[in-house]
Amino acid sequence: MSTDKDCIFCKIIRGEIPSKKVFEDDDVLAFHDIHPSAPVHVLVIPKKHIAKLSDATELDQAVLGKMMLVATKVANDLGSTDGFRTIINVGRVGRQDVFHLHMHVLGGPNPLGRMIAPE
Amino acid sequence: MSTDKDCIFCKIIRGEIPSKKVFEDDDVLAFHDIHPSAPVHVLVIPKKHIAKLSDATELDQAVLGKMMLVATKVANDLGSTDGFRTIINVGRVGRQDVFHLHMHVLGGPNPLGRMIAPE
Repeated sequence: MSTDKDCIFCKIIRGEIPSKKVFEDDDVLAFHDIHPSAPVHVLVIPKKHIAKLSDATELDQAVLGKMMLVATKVANDLGSTDGFRTIINVGRVGRQDVFHLHMHVLGGPNPLGRMIAPE
Repeated sequence: MSTDKDCIFCKIIRGEIPSKKVFEDDDVLAFHDIHPSAPVHVLVIPKKHIAKLSDATELDQAVLGKMMLVATKVANDLGSTDGFRTIINVGRVGRQDVFHLHMHVLGGPNPLGRMIAPE
């Protein structure tokens, strides 16, 4: 699996930085966000280092689809059984912070805030 | 392709309701949101009627992955070349409005608002 030496999420994948994992298989890792924005806030990432969604190619289609399936699984496993939200921030316009593709999975017992905050 | 008689997005897929399409192939349709929340605001949907992301199964993995690839394509095609955001609202907690799985693709020239609005 191709990882990046200096990428913080690749370090989490390699176990060099601790994380609270909620799902892992050969292709995908899911772990709790360290600054949760909702009662359930998990990050789902591909183990392959893809800096941002817009860098993904058709070769990545299967792992991208699996990330979507894992979102449901982790939301259910963490008790957010009546819905959740997935968000992927891409690049400058999307305000991406860590440049390893990650899908936020946000949930909890109550409806989340509005989809996007005006500024 | 399995569509639902009364679903508004299935009607758009079948051409019974007009839409401003930006991408279409055998599996996926993308069209402008009629109430845009950003300069670029497109909905990417599977042509198969899947009511919500949490109803998708491993059989849907390929189309879920394709939706992610199409997000980048439509953002680029519409000039949001320096990033974008994808959002999928699922069920009551996610405040899903239309019960046909849809991925919001939000972009434009300027950074978007915060990822989630507190209420």
